[in-house]
Amino acid sequence: MTDIVTFGETMLRLSPPRGDRLERAREFDVQAGGAESNVAVAASNLGCETTWLSKLPDSSLGRRVTSELESYGIDAAVAWDERPESRVGTYYLEYGGSPRGTNVVYDRADAAITTATAEELPTDAIADAEVFYTSGITPALSETAAETTKTLLHHAQANGTETAFDLNYRTKLWSPAEAAAGYRELFPYVDVLVAPISDVRTCLDLDGDAVEVANHLASTYDFDTVVVTRGDSGSLALHDGEVAEQGVFEADTFDAIGTGDAFVGGFLAQRVAGADLKDCLAYGAATASLKRTIGGDVALVTREEVERVVTDEGDAISR
Amino acid sequence: MTDIVTFGETMLRLSPPRGDRLERAREFDVQAGGAESNVAVAASNLGCETTWLSKLPDSSLGRRVTSELESYGIDAAVAWDERPESRVGTYYLEYGGSPRGTNVVYDRADAAITTATAEELPTDAIADAEVFYTSGITPALSETAAETTKTLLHHAQANGTETAFDLNYRTKLWSPAEAAAGYRELFPYVDVLVAPISDVRTCLDLDGDAVEVANHLASTYDFDTVVVTRGDSGSLALHDGEVAEQGVFEADTFDAIGTGDAFVGGFLAQRVAGADLKDCLAYGAATASLKRTIGGDVALVTREEVERVVTDEGDAISR
Amino acid sequence: MTDIVTFGETMLRLSPPRGDRLERAREFDVQAGGAESNVAVAASNLGCETTWLSKLPDSSLGRRVTSELESYGIDAAVAWDERPESRVGTYYLEYGGSPRGTNVVYDRADAAITTATAEELPTDAIADAEVFYTSGITPALSETAAETTKTLLHHAQANGTETAFDLNYRTKLWSPAEAAAGYRELFPYVDVLVAPISDVRTCLDLDGDAVEVANHLASTYDFDTVVVTRGDSGSLALHDGEVAEQGVFEADTFDAIGTGDAFVGGFLAQRVAGADLKDCLAYGAATASLKRTIGGDVALVTREEVERVVTDEGDAISR
Amino acid sequence: MTDIVTFGETMLRLSPPRGDRLERAREFDVQAGGAESNVAVAASNLGCETTWLSKLPDSSLGRRVTSELESYGIDAAVAWDERPESRVGTYYLEYGGSPRGTNVVYDRADAAITTATAEELPTDAIADAEVFYTSGITPALSETAAETTKTLLHHAQANGTETAFDLNYRTKLWSPAEAAAGYRELFPYVDVLVAPISDVRTCLDLDGDAVEVANHLASTYDFDTVVVTRGDSGSLALHDGEVAEQGVFEADTFDAIGTGDAFVGGFLAQRVAGADLKDCLAYGAATASLKRTIGGDVALVTREEVERVVTDEGDAISR
Amino acid sequence: MTDIVTFGETMLRLSPPRGDRLERAREFDVQAGGAESNVAVAASNLGCETTWLSKLPDSSLGRRVTSELESYGIDAAVAWDERPESRVGTYYLEYGGSPRGTNVVYDRADAAITTATAEELPTDAIADAEVFYTSGITPALSETAAETTKTLLHHAQANGTETAFDLNYRTKLWSPAEAAAGYRELFPYVDVLVAPISDVRTCLDLDGDAVEVANHLASTYDFDTVVVTRGDSGSLALHDGEVAEQGVFEADTFDAIGTGDAFVGGFLAQRVAGADLKDCLAYGAATASLKRTIGGDVALVTREEVERVVTDEGDAISR
Amino acid sequence: MTDIVTFGETMLRLSPPRGDRLERAREFDVQAGGAESNVAVAASNLGCETTWLSKLPDSSLGRRVTSELESYGIDAAVAWDERPESRVGTYYLEYGGSPRGTNVVYDRADAAITTATAEELPTDAIADAEVFYTSGITPALSETAAETTKTLLHHAQANGTETAFDLNYRTKLWSPAEAAAGYRELFPYVDVLVAPISDVRTCLDLDGDAVEVANHLASTYDFDTVVVTRGDSGSLALHDGEVAEQGVFEADTFDAIGTGDAFVGGFLAQRVAGADLKDCLAYGAATASLKRTIGGDVALVTREEVERVVTDEGDAISR
Repeated sequence: MTDIVTFGETMLRLSPPRGDRLERAREFDVQAGGAESNVAVAASNLGCETTWLSKLPDSSLGRRVTSELESYGIDAAVAWDERPESRVGTYYLEYGGSPRGTNVVYDRADAAITTATAEELPTDAIADAEVFYTSGITPALSETAAETTKTLLHHAQANGTETAFDLNYRTKLWSPAEAAAGYRELFPYVDVLVAPISDVRTCLDLDGDAVEVANHLASTYDFDTVVVTRGDSGSLALHDGEVAEQGVFEADTFDAIGTGDAFVGGFLAQRVAGADLKDCLAYGAATASLKRTIGGDVALVTREEVERVVTDEGDAISR
Repeated sequence: MTDIVTFGETMLRLSPPRGDRLERAREFDVQAGGAESNVAVAASNLGCETTWLSKLPDSSLGRRVTSELESYGIDAAVAWDERPESRVGTYYLEYGGSPRGTNVVYDRADAAITTATAEELPTDAIADAEVFYTSGITPALSETAAETTKTLLHHAQANGTETAFDLNYRTKLWSPAEAAAGYRELFPYVDVLVAPISDVRTCLDLDGDAVEVANHLASTYDFDTVVVTRGDSGSLALHDGEVAEQGVFEADTFDAIGTGDAFVGGFLAQRVAGADLKDCLAYGAATASLKRTIGGDVALVTREEVERVVTDEGDAISR
Repeated sequence: MTDIVTFGETMLRLSPPRGDRLERAREFDVQAGGAESNVAVAASNLGCETTWLSKLPDSSLGRRVTSELESYGIDAAVAWDERPESRVGTYYLEYGGSPRGTNVVYDRADAAITTATAEELPTDAIADAEVFYTSGITPALSETAAETTKTLLHHAQANGTETAFDLNYRTKLWSPAEAAAGYRELFPYVDVLVAPISDVRTCLDLDGDAVEVANHLASTYDFDTVVVTRGDSGSLALHDGEVAEQGVFEADTFDAIGTGDAFVGGFLAQRVAGADLKDCLAYGAATASLKRTIGGDVALVTREEVERVVTDEGDAISR
Repeated sequence: MTDIVTFGETMLRLSPPRGDRLERAREFDVQAGGAESNVAVAASNLGCETTWLSKLPDSSLGRRVTSELESYGIDAAVAWDERPESRVGTYYLEYGGSPRGTNVVYDRADAAITTATAEELPTDAIADAEVFYTSGITPALSETAAETTKTLLHHAQANGTETAFDLNYRTKLWSPAEAAAGYRELFPYVDVLVAPISDVRTCLDLDGDAVEVANHLASTYDFDTVVVTRGDSGSLALHDGEVAEQGVFEADTFDAIGTGDAFVGGFLAQRVAGADLKDCLAYGAATASLKRTIGGDVALVTREEVERVVTDEGDAISR
Repeated sequence: MTDIVTFGETMLRLSPPRGDRLERAREFDVQAGGAESNVAVAASNLGCETTWLSKLPDSSLGRRVTSELESYGIDAAVAWDERPESRVGTYYLEYGGSPRGTNVVYDRADAAITTATAEELPTDAIADAEVFYTSGITPALSETAAETTKTLLHHAQANGTETAFDLNYRTKLWSPAEAAAGYRELFPYVDVLVAPISDVRTCLDLDGDAVEVANHLASTYDFDTVVVTRGDSGSLALHDGEVAEQGVFEADTFDAIGTGDAFVGGFLAQRVAGADLKDCLAYGAATASLKRTIGGDVALVTREEVERVVTDEGDAISR
Repeated sequence: MTDIVTFGETMLRLSPPRGDRLERAREFDVQAGGAESNVAVAASNLGCETTWLSKLPDSSLGRRVTSELESYGIDAAVAWDERPESRVGTYYLEYGGSPRGTNVVYDRADAAITTATAEELPTDAIADAEVFYTSGITPALSETAAETTKTLLHHAQANGTETAFDLNYRTKLWSPAEAAAGYRELFPYVDVLVAPISDVRTCLDLDGDAVEVANHLASTYDFDTVVVTRGDSGSLALHDGEVAEQGVFEADTFDAIGTGDAFVGGFLAQRVAGADLKDCLAYGAATASLKRTIGGDVALVTREEVERVVTDEGDAISR
């Protein structure tokens, strides 16, 4: 049986070597990356059976995405789009330190996923799973994608599968107001909300500290659990009026992309394993910290490594 | 003064290392490539002043294209598209020897050029040039692009600039019937037609050998000059009932993409220089042959190298 | 249900860039390669469900092998060896043209697979499959491996699964006499024998042409089908006294390693699909030919590409 | 019209990968780099029309330099040296962190530029420009180069073009005493002096803090403006007895080479734009800071990025 | 005459690019590395004549090791193992920052060196040398290697060659108890002991600070000199009751592997040069610090660079 | 004792990837290459003790050359030039197939070797050797180099060391007339002349076939042995009126640079081994053929491989 099912877009990520600019790029490193498959991979590496639902063109580029994801041990349950004009979304990632900053250029309009309907996806997998996860990126992709997201969340809840949702606000996809409206369409079907505090402030117009925000969200939208992430300031989770907190584990950052997804993957894996909130946060934080040391979107870690971080063992050269 | 102005789309060309398949690609070599800029670069390397007209997003990826082209010495006169959703066309190139064959996957739908109108392009450059060139790819990109192509060809002729047009049929862009209709819209404004014999057969439904085809085209559409290219079998040109012929110069092929464009660039450069038809064909063939030894879309050659091929000097190690 | 199950060793293949020698190598390209997984991948790419059985250390290097193989769409059913001293076999591949020749240096002694017993492998998969395949490399690895090979072949036959075996003689693993003895232990459990003519001559001491060899083998050992491969001279298959023949499809060779395995994979895929002998040989030959154009051990092809070769369509640039 | 004209040597910069030493280098990254073209590129990226004057061999290596520079959008106005023995200067750059330090090995003796005379350079461009810039490297290259530098500075002033000069002392080119003498030859023709404080101390034997140094230089040599740069301690500018100061913007340094040139380019671009001294320093500092995050000699930045640093916006991942 | 002779295993070191994990590695950088050859190279770069003794297969991979080491200027005096099954040890190095840590995976079982006997090694070189060095890795490789280590240390002492030994405890080779027993077999033949404080604590069960440990070791085992290294806390040396101390020189670490060996190489080179203990420590620390800035196992430094660190000169860009 | 001593310049060879042009090169592969060290390496690989004499700057770039050469097993006996302005010659190698051809751009003027005098070289090694070898490149470098070449050849002959000399005419270094005069200065001191037939025709103005040329040279200049090489047409040797001939061994050429030097190295190694003329030619031809399959200037071969070619064994994959 599958533990976790996720749904969302995975793109080809094209990045020039460090120190190079897109305007001059001579070569790109190629990887598959997307929030929901990132979450599935992280959870899979921690021992969950995971399935990722999506739609891709039936082409060498579409298979480029699934073959990489399957090498990570997740099940890629993809609706293959046979229209010749169907495309894979791509994104260009330019690394940069301060003050330049890392830059992401999307070229994802009209990707196959924007046409994905619930009918063409294997929704049985959702009904059988422990957790169904998607993020705020998916409904932002197209009206069809938003409709499908809602249908799948509803379908999950109706079948007793816990639903988890990360706001994952993307400026380049929609405005704060559009996002807020989109989120509110989905909140009735969400059990576990993961809310980056900056997204909450930008889109939902909530002030107050993380605890106040969590309480407000939980009471307003009746979530079972609310997780608020605060970047370097750590995370907290609220359930039944009880709050658990977790700091970040320091990391030598090699590639920050996917940190949040690694957190969610670690959190959900431990939740599926029946751990308490505090423990789920710790595994999320440890997975996120390890992710930062690894190139690419996904957290190529082992459960043993995550546990070593949680129990705070050293990082000397192991020989 | 500019000698040659061209108009068309230039894409980012992404190619995995030789022997690798797109389905597994881990890295892409990045280059700018497009028929009309390829022609401009080849002619420029042979000594012409050339300007390439196009439309690109005002982004790092758009500037990626122009900065490379300007490094080749051509003038990139680009209408910058400021819409955030504007995109650069891309194409994926997978090298392959027999029996697999080289494969091209386009991802060019809705590129900025599909919205290019004559009004936003610097058409004065065309009026002042000796030759205006575009190819059958451009009108296939969108209705707007087809309209603009026609307007520019008309504008050139009206101002005494010779017009040159290569059929450049692309299966993945339109059907033979659509192409034929598209071509016929433009033929009245074309002085020099470059016609790959296979495109003629596929789209224009003409049989007969190259001379018959050239005569038929010249008489039907009243072209000043018709050049028929026949792959390994060489080329011929017809003007005023007179035929010139040219074989191919043998090459150790490293990268065949852009061979036809190199031919046209060499041909037009020599035409601008006032050479006779036979000489134009020879320079075209020599430029094309050298191109095949060089990676990328464009013919990075010198006039001296082309002349050495035309006069058939050896290729021993030069030291 | 699984169509084809294979059993054997897969190694890490380390190869310096072309033109470089092992004695000076500064970098290695890394791939997973092994005869029986190569066969599984080729068959999988042609549409079969395939499972590969093996034993690997429970380590990052062991997972390096399975994650690559699973990215190719096959099921890696591996007995994980938890002994700290367990190792993955490696082989060093130095490309070289004539007169130097390509050279392979093995470092595979004491790899995990040498301790694999039938008990620790998921033999149910064999019983349920259409075809079980292994090659003469496996019994050469250790006495335990030889014993396990025999047990699995026997188990397959006993459960009505057709068995296929490729002699795959390796000078560096055993002597011709040892190989002959090893083969003869297994022949009673083999239905389909794939016999490279040079292996037959070296180890089994048979002269005569390919037809004579096939007949002799079939009558001596009572094989259902004998396939004799003859390198550039093509292949033939004998069944019930009837002979089918197939020439090779010409290829621009990029990497010859794995050609034979691609042939077997194509042959078996078509056999599972119920094709006649001639057709099986044709698919084998086409898969092998395509393999030669691709870097690495495995035939990263599509069924459509194989069929295009079988029906002999051209290999011009496809755009 | 051109805003800024610069004159100086640009070399091929050859650098092994980080962590590698020149004594073992197996591969070099190749870039074009030189103080005066670096300044031109930075200013160009901030919106100026810039022209760089130099002399190079008429060879593939000479064109290697100009084609890269033209891809950066500057005009390369080069006197082509047709002597077969003419050479491009090269420099080898070995990256190294503390305590090893980055090391530069020059191989620039007898480069084409050492023979450049004012007569063979397009001096009209200078007369028409707003600013003419060169640095203390140029007169150190040869007697002829020193003479030409003086002639061009004089020519600029005589035609109402503001002259700017950076001491840019290079130990490997001349002694402090030689440099001091060389500088003093040129100071009468300099309006804006850029003076790294360490160069002032080493060559001009001035003590005191930056303000004292600036005042001393301004009064002694009658400069219109003196800019003193102090590495991590920021910069100050003196004009008409008024002092402006600017700290550095912190940067994650990827490649420190060219930081000073980026500062000058940003400073001059803003000066041409009519900004006040304080603003010029801020743009210089911001351009310099961004440069440090980018590989290669030149500041591949946009005006928008520089302004974001000046107004101190964050550097989170932009998506 | 040779100054320093060392004896030990040198392996092929295979490392994926930074940020990549072994489980996904696509390419390996290849280098030769081993404690005792690392020491020899460091000492050689500081001006010593050094010879390294070992045993390797007589194959391209064996020569891969010696050709690299000889390029570093040391003499590789190798017993060539002609058994076809003879192998070179390999180790896989995965870089990782905190909290993941750098990881080393050994594949060194049954390497040629495990069969090396004193008889097949050129022991005359030892008798003629100033210093003979080996480390605790060597006796851990096999019983034969342990026996040979003892014989060579004894042989050195008997011929008036000073012996130096670094504990170099490796968890993956033997247990603390086994190591302690192994060390105690050799201590009678050791003059200079280099003892990482953590190895002392793990294996020899000694508490107390470094001075106490040094005194205890010196008095218990009658060493002439004891050097205790304490990672970031520096080192101290004890001789004749006198203690010298040395802090570490700060470094921007690029590759920490081989730091300890560089320390020993610098220490021994200076000892051979007749310097006092404090000076030996300083050269050791400086060599170690420089090593950290360089990729690979060995300290590719010059004596001049080491002296610049010892005398604490800056690390600005040198040009 | 040394078998063969050679004298000449070795440069850094910088080559962009195949298919790339120098005008756009982004990276260079770096190798050490020079005719006389190439010969020494080839002979060394066939079992000779060889020493190469030269002069290089005492710098990281100078050591770059010697460390590579010493990794090939030859002894680099170099006069270290301590002048700061001393330089290593470089050459740029651009690969190209027909009709473009491979191109070499030299940047070797004023390299350290141009100042090498016999006094600063270890001439004792010459007196003790079997053979002293240099080529026509060396006297073309400078008057000093020409004088030193003559002195060393004379010194060799005077001490009973056989002298060998390859014309190795280089258009880019001197004119045919200058070369002829230079050669004639040296011929009195040459025992074995290696004469590429095209060099003979270009510089020495001799017609006739290879046998006639050999006879003419032998009788005119009183050489002990004359070897005439004819590219693809093979070679012949004349001694005492007796002629031996040898065809070329076919090769898949990967890198043709150094083919002639490999021939000479193989020829001389076998001559030192006391073989007859025919056998020397065969080893030369086999070494040359193998060289063509290997990247770089030098013949990284083994004696076993050369013998396999001489005895004409196949080149199938060896496993």
